[in-house]
Amino acid sequence: MKARRYGILGTGALGGFYGARLQKAGLEVHYLLHRDYEQVKQHGLVVESVDGDFNLPVVHAYASPEEMPRCDVIVVALKTTQNELLPELIPPIVQPGGIVLVLQNGLGIEAEVAAIAPEAHILGGLCFLCSNKVGPGHIRHLDYGQIVLGEYWAGDVPAGITSRLEQVAEDFRQAGIPIQVEPDLLLARWRKLVWNIPYNGLSVVLDAQTDEMMANPMTRSLATHLMQEVVAAAAGYGRVIPAEFIGTMLTHTDNMKPYRTSMKIDYDEGRPMEIETMYGNPLRAAQQAGVSTPRIEMLYQQLSFLDKMRFNVRKMG
Amino acid sequence: MKARRYGILGTGALGGFYGARLQKAGLEVHYLLHRDYEQVKQHGLVVESVDGDFNLPVVHAYASPEEMPRCDVIVVALKTTQNELLPELIPPIVQPGGIVLVLQNGLGIEAEVAAIAPEAHILGGLCFLCSNKVGPGHIRHLDYGQIVLGEYWAGDVPAGITSRLEQVAEDFRQAGIPIQVEPDLLLARWRKLVWNIPYNGLSVVLDAQTDEMMANPMTRSLATHLMQEVVAAAAGYGRVIPAEFIGTMLTHTDNMKPYRTSMKIDYDEGRPMEIETMYGNPLRAAQQAGVSTPRIEMLYQQLSFLDKMRFNVRKMG
Repeated sequence: MKARRYGILGTGALGGFYGARLQKAGLEVHYLLHRDYEQVKQHGLVVESVDGDFNLPVVHAYASPEEMPRCDVIVVALKTTQNELLPELIPPIVQPGGIVLVLQNGLGIEAEVAAIAPEAHILGGLCFLCSNKVGPGHIRHLDYGQIVLGEYWAGDVPAGITSRLEQVAEDFRQAGIPIQVEPDLLLARWRKLVWNIPYNGLSVVLDAQTDEMMANPMTRSLATHLMQEVVAAAAGYGRVIPAEFIGTMLTHTDNMKPYRTSMKIDYDEGRPMEIETMYGNPLRAAQQAGVSTPRIEMLYQQLSFLDKMRFNVRKMG
Repeated sequence: MKARRYGILGTGALGGFYGARLQKAGLEVHYLLHRDYEQVKQHGLVVESVDGDFNLPVVHAYASPEEMPRCDVIVVALKTTQNELLPELIPPIVQPGGIVLVLQNGLGIEAEVAAIAPEAHILGGLCFLCSNKVGPGHIRHLDYGQIVLGEYWAGDVPAGITSRLEQVAEDFRQAGIPIQVEPDLLLARWRKLVWNIPYNGLSVVLDAQTDEMMANPMTRSLATHLMQEVVAAAAGYGRVIPAEFIGTMLTHTDNMKPYRTSMKIDYDEGRPMEIETMYGNPLRAAQQAGVSTPRIEMLYQQLSFLDKMRFNVRKMG
């Protein structure tokens, strides 16, 4: 069987890292770039990594999807705040019957992609990766890298472990990426939100790191309440997250090094925050299931306000 | 009948203003002071006011309650964050069978005062006053001044309009202060919280003025939801606030000049915030009545965290 050809949308801290690892493992990888196009076209990719540094002096770099060949697997590694671009980016490059792998946070993205590429198969991946882009085409991988991978079926019906899922998992494993396959992608997404919803949003609203929020009984309790709302929302879709999982997440956060969340980093650096996929979509999903999640809603409203205000000129001191 | 003698606890922007007005109207007023004692003892009080400036070169000033004569009406005009001092301050100066008038924001204060001074009659007043202390013994009255005045009875039983209430109201009216007497103090307190709870807390958490919160649909909706929770909590105590009142408060806020709330001013100037009386007590009251107020709880938790963090040294950047 012919090796799968990969196309990377969003060659940054995440897409650049995974794409480079796939290419290093011998797969054919094509990268769509925007600001870094000239640099990467000329000089390739540089990856500093806890797993070992490496360079890829020659890569297939493109400035527009029309120049790219059709690929078997499209990896969507943009920030979700750029997802309005997907209808232009995906259709020209996906092979008929090909795969779109969404490596993004939050909820509801696979359904959007399915509408854009109705003939493709959609996979979703939840990345536990700590990496930064430190310069054009230059990625620093600090820790972790695991992906929880599942297949999306319409209506969020659990897809089980398909052969398609296993093939993509195998490509990533050959590239040295730990992969956990998940028979129920929606359950995996809600489980990840149990951590993401409290800590990302509160870290922005309260200008706080994880250790500070855990040390204060008020915010510890609030984080717990937010987690309970996520668990209740998941239950509204028949996805059972056991109550012990909340305790596990709290202990896990207690044991983490003081951590600035990805949303806080986006906020501090003046980048748009992934509010709609991480808060808006879960909130609307909960509402549709008739589950009350007032704290998630309040955090969504607070974040939306802060996001808008950053780009406003203040009228008064 | 002998004119009532007044004792002012907390001679600042609020207590200094009302005390000076009572004295100017001919009543005998005694002022307890702390930091400003020497200045006021020597030079009296200076009031700049939209209603006309005046000086009181000679006032009865005291540095401790033990030196004060017993008074017929004790006016509690401290910030509620200093209420742990009340057991030392009130008993030495209140006349047997006298009155304690609590001019503070929030809920549950009259019951505390009743426990401290079991033989006194307790009145509560909600002040709509815009004034600042601009220097020792120097008050600048910018706008408004009305007080909504009610009598407290144990168990928050509505006291009606008592003769005691009317007498104190008459003293203030003689001093040119508009007074509205309220037969049900608890209802008046919950009504004031309908405005105070959303705007004070959110202005701190979101670093925002009223006009900014009203212009953004997300925070406008959040303020409305918070108001609905206050109305629901009041209903848990049989206090009916009509639904139209929320619309009235929103319109009123739309029509206000851009406004920095008193809690935001306290926060910005490094002073403790009145979190327990404005959020903690209403939240606990709602819980006791079996009314769910998750947004009030979340705001309480967020404010408590921010209050603590200001006085911490950050461990990390």
